[in-house]
Amino acid sequence: MGKNQNVYDDEIFFEGYKGIRAQENNYNKLQEQPAIKSLLPDLKGKRILDLGCGYGDSCSYFIEKGAQKVVGIDISKKMLEVARKENSHENIEYLEKSMDDIENLSGKFDLVYSSLALHYMEDFEKLLMDINNLMRKDGEFIYSQEHPLSTAHRKGLRWTRGEDGMGIHYNLANYMKSGKRETTWFIDGVIKYHRTFSEIINTVNECGFQIEKILEPLPSEEDIKLIPKMVQDFHKPNFLILKLGKK
Amino acid sequence: MGKNQNVYDDEIFFEGYKGIRAQENNYNKLQEQPAIKSLLPDLKGKRILDLGCGYGDSCSYFIEKGAQKVVGIDISKKMLEVARKENSHENIEYLEKSMDDIENLSGKFDLVYSSLALHYMEDFEKLLMDINNLMRKDGEFIYSQEHPLSTAHRKGLRWTRGEDGMGIHYNLANYMKSGKRETTWFIDGVIKYHRTFSEIINTVNECGFQIEKILEPLPSEEDIKLIPKMVQDFHKPNFLILKLGKK
Repeated sequence: MGKNQNVYDDEIFFEGYKGIRAQENNYNKLQEQPAIKSLLPDLKGKRILDLGCGYGDSCSYFIEKGAQKVVGIDISKKMLEVARKENSHENIEYLEKSMDDIENLSGKFDLVYSSLALHYMEDFEKLLMDINNLMRKDGEFIYSQEHPLSTAHRKGLRWTRGEDGMGIHYNLANYMKSGKRETTWFIDGVIKYHRTFSEIINTVNECGFQIEKILEPLPSEEDIKLIPKMVQDFHKPNFLILKLGKK
Repeated sequence: MGKNQNVYDDEIFFEGYKGIRAQENNYNKLQEQPAIKSLLPDLKGKRILDLGCGYGDSCSYFIEKGAQKVVGIDISKKMLEVARKENSHENIEYLEKSMDDIENLSGKFDLVYSSLALHYMEDFEKLLMDINNLMRKDGEFIYSQEHPLSTAHRKGLRWTRGEDGMGIHYNLANYMKSGKRETTWFIDGVIKYHRTFSEIINTVNECGFQIEKILEPLPSEEDIKLIPKMVQDFHKPNFLILKLGKK
């Protein structure tokens, strides 16, 4: 898939992903989205950049919350087709573009937002420096990624399960081995990049950010009623969310 | 053991601990100590506070490196007896004191240092605020603790092992369940407090610190020759070390 991985334009992947997004309840809707949205500042009059905007749902949300201008970028033509159909607005601009290629975007942003996209990126440092350059002095960068305890995984079973099928413990291996992971998600060969906690924090720090808040979201009792296997998240969370300011 | 836990004055614990510390090679000597010491600034002329100083080895080290004054506090009378015997110096002051009880220490410090003691402390927030108050404006707080992936553990086997006895994966459970852990280390009922990454980072942040560096140390090839089971650390590290400045 190379540097600018674009699995979302693969037919099988795209259909599988569409199926997940259409579910009434899933991990994104119940956990990741409420958690990352809880970190947003007041958006009135703000200029916002959404990295890996996908279907553009968050772009629409930002406009609803009073944003002045939203730029959504995504590497996938198919995702942007959906975005332009379902989440079109005169103040939203969609650009087909890799996150590796944002350094020439024009203007500065009050908020850079990215939901579950950064673990696909090989060059974390370049990306963070580009983002920092695109931010206004008092701007914020809020992003979510798969939790490092998830991305650590290489092969074999993720969970050791009890008789009821629920995970008793998570089979953690290779956590300290940073780098490329090839996983199967609808299709083989989906590439993600694992980074340890210390690597994430130190890189963010060295690239001119200060940490304002970190979240490792947990399911509510209501969530567990809807998706019982979410109790496993008390053993190993699924998401890591950072709210960063400029130093 | 209550709030001011003092296992180190238990006879059996103290003898067991003495045995470990007397080993030529162990996790502390090969991993934790080189890593935490690598974060130290120039110590010439500095005033240093060592929280949980134990035998006082680090207090002596700070004096060797040119520190002007070192205050070592420890809750254990037995540990301090050894410290006063083996690491006595006119510019080192040893105080028998719980870390819960440092708010009235006199003077401000350039460096607050603590090696593998903070995971015994229930009230992390109070401790951090007390430490922040004891630091000069440009002071630093450098501390190590057991890694959160270690303190998460509640009961059962920590590792799933292969035929050669080496850990294939770490049995991670209860990572998101913060709080008290009762473990056996020479004696039953040693109390530690587990905190997640996000809890550590957010508390440190809210208590007026900014993160300068985080380490999750790994063994060198040389270390693994000396202690072969250290290869397991690539699956799950043992220590977390933070270098913090004042905001």
